[in-house]
This record gives sequence, structure tokens and C-alpha cells, in this order.
Amino acid sequence: MLVGIGLMPHGNPVLEPPDEETRKLARVLNDIGEAFGDVDSYVLVSPHNVRMSDHLGVVMAENLISWLGFEGKELPGEWKTDIELAEKIYRAEKEAGIPIVDLNFASRSGQYSRWPLSWGELIPLQFLRKKPLVLMTPSRGIDRKTLVKAGEILGRVLEESEKRVALIISADHGHAHAKNGPYGYREESEEYDELIMELINEDRLGELLEIPEELINNALPDSYWGMLIMLGAMRVGKFELKGSAYACPTYFGMAGALWVRKS
Amino acid sequence: MLVGIGLMPHGNPVLEPPDEETRKLARVLNDIGEAFGDVDSYVLVSPHNVRMSDHLGVVMAENLISWLGFEGKELPGEWKTDIELAEKIYRAEKEAGIPIVDLNFASRSGQYSRWPLSWGELIPLQFLRKKPLVLMTPSRGIDRKTLVKAGEILGRVLEESEKRVALIISADHGHAHAKNGPYGYREESEEYDELIMELINEDRLGELLEIPEELINNALPDSYWGMLIMLGAMRVGKFELKGSAYACPTYFGMAGALWVRKS
Repeated sequence: MLVGIGLMPHGNPVLEPPDEETRKLARVLNDIGEAFGDVDSYVLVSPHNVRMSDHLGVVMAENLISWLGFEGKELPGEWKTDIELAEKIYRAEKEAGIPIVDLNFASRSGQYSRWPLSWGELIPLQFLRKKPLVLMTPSRGIDRKTLVKAGEILGRVLEESEKRVALIISADHGHAHAKNGPYGYREESEEYDELIMELINEDRLGELLEIPEELINNALPDSYWGMLIMLGAMRVGKFELKGSAYACPTYFGMAGALWVRKS
Repeated sequence: MLVGIGLMPHGNPVLEPPDEETRKLARVLNDIGEAFGDVDSYVLVSPHNVRMSDHLGVVMAENLISWLGFEGKELPGEWKTDIELAEKIYRAEKEAGIPIVDLNFASRSGQYSRWPLSWGELIPLQFLRKKPLVLMTPSRGIDRKTLVKAGEILGRVLEESEKRVALIISADHGHAHAKNGPYGYREESEEYDELIMELINEDRLGELLEIPEELINNALPDSYWGMLIMLGAMRVGKFELKGSAYACPTYFGMAGALWVRKS
């Protein structure tokens, strides 16, 4: 059963919040960890692991190992893949015609079956109790409807599972919020981030599908494609927003949101 | 232009050969390194990097970083991807309908665009001068003819390139040569390895396509699928076998072979 959903940022500032807004955001992230303290597994969708042009990925490697921090922030640790659930998801997506690949590394099983984690996974994982994961990767080259459909199939697999599973979407939003940031300042980053927070807080996530391509391209988010998968998965039931927060202490927008299952 | 091909094992014993046969094999590997000392780039096909059921992979990450040694044998180092060539290969395979994905990690470019290497790549690389690479991964779930066709397309892309490129196939053969090895003893491992060496030494590689599925399954090689890609690539011209060797100092068979372009 899909018991809830956490939208979580992956920026270093949430680890040591420099201001009140980011502290509020970190509190929402802690609430997500707390709310999902009793789940059996997570499905974690991350835009900073494998990046493929036109295929989703499901990691099948047994061991998930910290490998790559951002700006020197190393977060060591190892997690285990929920292989049974990963296989179910992969098979269901594949059978439905979703472009998806299963990803293992080095060996098919055992200690050498390993997969590297980046800040995109490691930062959300800092707020979550250690449990088995299914790591999935979104793709920007897959059309919107197919991403939503992939989410629906994911949601159905989780519904049919006897396990209690939380879906975690690792996502940051506009990346052009600061003149002196790596992408400079673009008003579309502000516009996108405001819209995303509106859609979250006003229960209007269905409108994600209507965001103009140009706004997304110019805002430079990494959140959009994972959120479409989330949108599809949320269609399996009703979810209640328990908390949300937004902060932009540097050049990119970070949002946290916790939804728990109502029915 | 595809200037030559090296079939190279990835077992630790070639690094410190324990016997005369393995020393001979290591000499062939050194000859491969020497023969390709003046190429611009390598294409390296490895069965111990990403493993996908039914898709080939081309790594697009800028930086290729040592990550995983076998039995504690760590071989640190970093290599660069020949991105221009990697993109040409990916696009040509994709256009021809080959099931293939492009693989990047974390970031699309720059220092965070990184990809992990295992012993499957690191051991052959010990014998090769440091040059840009295109790392490709084979797949066991793709039928034989499609693997050969993928090799043909790869060969054509290399032919059309103004660069001098060597193709390196990382491959070990039967893995059930020792009663006390992890896979025990199976006569099919011997049979497969003898056949592979015959096909190499007697210029009969076309017969790779006729090896019974059952023999391959029982012999437990990781060589077969990469060698089919090699077979396809070799169809772009004529290649002369300059040296070959076989050794089996532990439980798996290792072969080295060097072909250079004749015409």
C-alpha cells in the first residue's frame, strides 16, 4: 500500500539551515521522516542518479552506496535495495510499455552488486529512517502523459503490495534565483517555484500537466519530471497534505511537502 | 577508423601472474597496449559495469572514476569519456533501432558528471595507455543477431570517424573450472574455453553464432555477448591476429587476443 508521499529537496542547506525559512523546510523534512517511520520500504525517485535521455530506470543492485556529495559535503552510508518490490515495479512498467530499464552493476547479486548514490538521494535519506529502497530515475525525454502513466503503474504496484511503502520524490525547483549563482537570475525560476507551491498548497497538482514547456525550460528545475510520476502515483487514492515549506537560501528553490493517505 | 581490437580478461591474476601461462597472457595484454599506443580513443565494452536485461548502454558521463575492485584489489584512477564519439555511437545505434540507452550520472556535464568503474574496466585499462574512452555495456537479453548488428553499426561509426580508435572487449570465459571455486567444476567451461580459443586462432569467429545456448549457459562465461558485438564490428574490414594466449590459474578462463587492421 502506498501510505504517503514526501517531496524532498536535495540541497546541502537543509542539513545546516542558514535562515528561518530553511529551518522551517528542514522541520517539514523531519516530519516526513517521522510520518514514514513505520513503513517497510521507500521508493525514491531521484534526478541526480543515472540520467538517461528517454528511459526510466529501476536500480536492481543489492547494495546502494554513498559515492558523490555536492560541494564537498560527503554523506557516507549504505542502504539495501528492496529487490522484490523493484522487480515488481520494473515488470509492471515494462508490461505496460513504459520505456524503462533495470539497472544492476558489476555482479547480478551479492556483495559486488552495488550502485552509487549522489547527493540527490543522500540528502533526502538523511531525514528518513534506514529502510530498504527502490531507487528509480526519471527522464526528461519521455512525454508528460507517459511519465504520469508510469506513476500510475507504480502506484498500482505499491497498492497491490502487502508492504507499507512511502514514495519519496527528490526534487529541486528553479535554479536561476541568484544573479551570482551558476545559472544567473531568471524571473521564470521565481514564477515556476511560486506556481509549484500554489499547486501543492491548493491541491491543484493536476495542473502540473499544463505548465508551459517554455516556463519549465527557462526555470531550470530538476523537479518537474519526478513530480509527474508522483502525480500519477497519487491517483491510486486520496492523500492529505500534512505540511509544506519552501526556501531559497542560495540560487535554487527547495520545497518540502508531506502527504499522507486518507483513503 | 577502427585500427584494431583487443580481447582482454579482467581477472586479478593477470596483474601479478602466478604461473608461466598467465605470464604469457600478460605479455599479450602488454602487446595490446603497445599496439594501440598511438590511437586517439578506445571503445571499451565491459560486462561488469551497468548490467541491463535488454538494453545496451553507452556512458556519456564526462569522468570515469575507479570505484570497485575485486577481492580487495583496488586500482585507483580516472579517465575521460570521448563524448563526441560516444554521442555518435549512441545516435547511430538508436537510429538503427538497437535497444540502447545513454547513461549519465548526477549532472549532465562538468565535474559532477561521473561514472563508476569496476574491475571489469580497470584491469584491461592497466595495460592500455591513458586515452579518452567510450564505455559500452553489452546485454544478455538481446538476441545474437541484434548484438552482431549493434557491433556492425559501432564498426561503421568508428570507420567514419577521423579518429583512430581501438575496440577493447573485456571478457572472461568459463567460470566453472575449479571444484573448489564459487561455481564448482563443469566440463562445459573447458569445452567453451577451448572452442573460443579455436575460433580465435583459426579465424573462425563467425562460428560464435552457432554455439549452442545450453553450452553458453552451462559454461558460465561473461564473454559471449561482448564478443558478438566484436564480431559485428570486425565486419568493417580485415583484421590480422597478432597474438593470443589463454590461462586459467584459478576458477575462470582468461583469454587475450590482439587483432590489427589489414585493410
